[in-house]
Amino acid sequence: MSSEVVTLAHGGGGSLMRELLVRQVFPVLGVVEAGEDAAWVGDGLLMTTDSFVVKPLFFPGGDIGKLAVYGTVNDLAMRGARPLALTVGLIVEEGLGLEVLEEVLASLAEAAEECEVPIIGGDTKVVEAGRGDGLYINTAGLGQAVAPHEDLPSLARAQPGDAVLVSGPMGEHGVAVLAAREQLGFAAEVMSDCAPLHEMALVLVGELGTDVHCLHDPTRGGLAAALNEIAQTSAVGLRVYEAALPRQEAVEVACELLGFDSLQVANEGKLVAVVAKRSAEDALALMRADARGSQSALVGEVMLEVAGRAEVLTGLGTRRVLEMPSGELLPRIC
Amino acid sequence: MSSEVVTLAHGGGGSLMRELLVRQVFPVLGVVEAGEDAAWVGDGLLMTTDSFVVKPLFFPGGDIGKLAVYGTVNDLAMRGARPLALTVGLIVEEGLGLEVLEEVLASLAEAAEECEVPIIGGDTKVVEAGRGDGLYINTAGLGQAVAPHEDLPSLARAQPGDAVLVSGPMGEHGVAVLAAREQLGFAAEVMSDCAPLHEMALVLVGELGTDVHCLHDPTRGGLAAALNEIAQTSAVGLRVYEAALPRQEAVEVACELLGFDSLQVANEGKLVAVVAKRSAEDALALMRADARGSQSALVGEVMLEVAGRAEVLTGLGTRRVLEMPSGELLPRIC
Repeated sequence: MSSEVVTLAHGGGGSLMRELLVRQVFPVLGVVEAGEDAAWVGDGLLMTTDSFVVKPLFFPGGDIGKLAVYGTVNDLAMRGARPLALTVGLIVEEGLGLEVLEEVLASLAEAAEECEVPIIGGDTKVVEAGRGDGLYINTAGLGQAVAPHEDLPSLARAQPGDAVLVSGPMGEHGVAVLAAREQLGFAAEVMSDCAPLHEMALVLVGELGTDVHCLHDPTRGGLAAALNEIAQTSAVGLRVYEAALPRQEAVEVACELLGFDSLQVANEGKLVAVVAKRSAEDALALMRADARGSQSALVGEVMLEVAGRAEVLTGLGTRRVLEMPSGELLPRIC
Repeated sequence: MSSEVVTLAHGGGGSLMRELLVRQVFPVLGVVEAGEDAAWVGDGLLMTTDSFVVKPLFFPGGDIGKLAVYGTVNDLAMRGARPLALTVGLIVEEGLGLEVLEEVLASLAEAAEECEVPIIGGDTKVVEAGRGDGLYINTAGLGQAVAPHEDLPSLARAQPGDAVLVSGPMGEHGVAVLAAREQLGFAAEVMSDCAPLHEMALVLVGELGTDVHCLHDPTRGGLAAALNEIAQTSAVGLRVYEAALPRQEAVEVACELLGFDSLQVANEGKLVAVVAKRSAEDALALMRADARGSQSALVGEVMLEVAGRAEVLTGLGTRRVLEMPSGELLPRIC
């Protein structure tokens, strides 16, 4: 299906987004490592960029400033790269309170300090009232790979027999932002998981080396999108065991009331790791040893069957396809 | 003067913009090389970022895609860096025609190819109709310095006695965009000068070495802002001779009708060079040898007097202060 104009669904993190990026954007631009969280530059360097249009700017557990730093640091980390430098581009809507801008920038600076990455340059543009929505932030990041290019984690390296791990329960960020935006009382206790993951990722790559096949942060489109992206890029099948997935009760309740599948809801401080089977237990121990991964779990495996797709084995022993979210699930979530 | 909300004037490239960046944004973020076109990362690398919000997306002589590539390539070039890689972040407004997006991306890709710089990664976000304006683009660039850090051109290196050169007439980009936006018939023949400057800049640095003290592209706020930024950063005075400035007749006529000073109007394919006096003639010859600099001229000098300011010596022999444009001159010009 192709529409003639860009729709909100194109921004939802699912298959329309993928279509826009993979069919319309990347080929035209000549992007080589399309779909990877960060791209190889050469000489041990990787780069990544993300724009942040989250609404509202502040939400339980974070704000657009933290998100902009962690999102870019995490994208580098998913390729086994230590963050070297960030740039920040602001698009400010006329009328934004200067104290709001200052608060966001202070939070952004604090997050960068926490990640020990310098912000080396910036740019500010102002657009007329009604042509923006308070504040959009773009960050770009440069990272130093901790291994040669061919040994770095990549969405293309999953192999049949590999173990699939997640670093905690799914869906907190998406539910927290939605609750803040729509003032959903029943979800008010859910906090965004927004957090940097470079320490966890670099420990995994440092300790387990080439046994770490893929690292991916399940942001837009959640775990469902992340697993489908790995399955498609590596041309393998991914199966997760429903009973093994860590759950956050308040998120599940909110998702049930809202008619969402928590596996399709965005996270901003979780990673999926696909590792060689022999290193699965070591990976789990390393992830659990990180405060941000205390609820890590081994949740599935990579198969030759159902190549290009992900599936869930339910508690009842039945299999259901874990669909790539197709259209708009939660717009403006990051 | 400080207002409590962000105004369009903060985006105009003049002193309010500088106040926003230098007082509100950079210190909070800990940016070290504040105000430089590109920032030193270490290990011979520089980075820069810019967001582009130009309106309309297409204008005589260019479009937002070309602007996004050239703008970032030029910022690297002004620090004596060869472009190594670009990232592209798109913020698309719901409802934008896919064929418009494709046309912009094709132009952007063509510009990158022209500059021989790969686009290695990208990101796309979609915002609701009325929360954007068709398309905003952020580019970030990584560059390889052609000299050690302390020898690179910098806004801080202008010295009394230096010569000031410009690579052509001022104001074409701003007038072309305004003419396209407001359908000003009398300015219809003006084309944007939007073009890459890395070849000219790298030849200057390659041939004249440390005698090239500052390179700066007079974008928002035009030559007036560029010269004031150098004057303030180097704590010197800059004087330009009105009679020596190359002029484009149609731009001057349009500016006269509109009540603008062409020296305050944006360019996207011109550079200002401040070089040691002994290398002034060589610099001029090198700039003129480049097709994009055929109208280059030696237009002024650096002085100890009037430190922190720029002035124009008029044809009548009188001096007038070349003010840093204070507020909004032409919003959404890049």
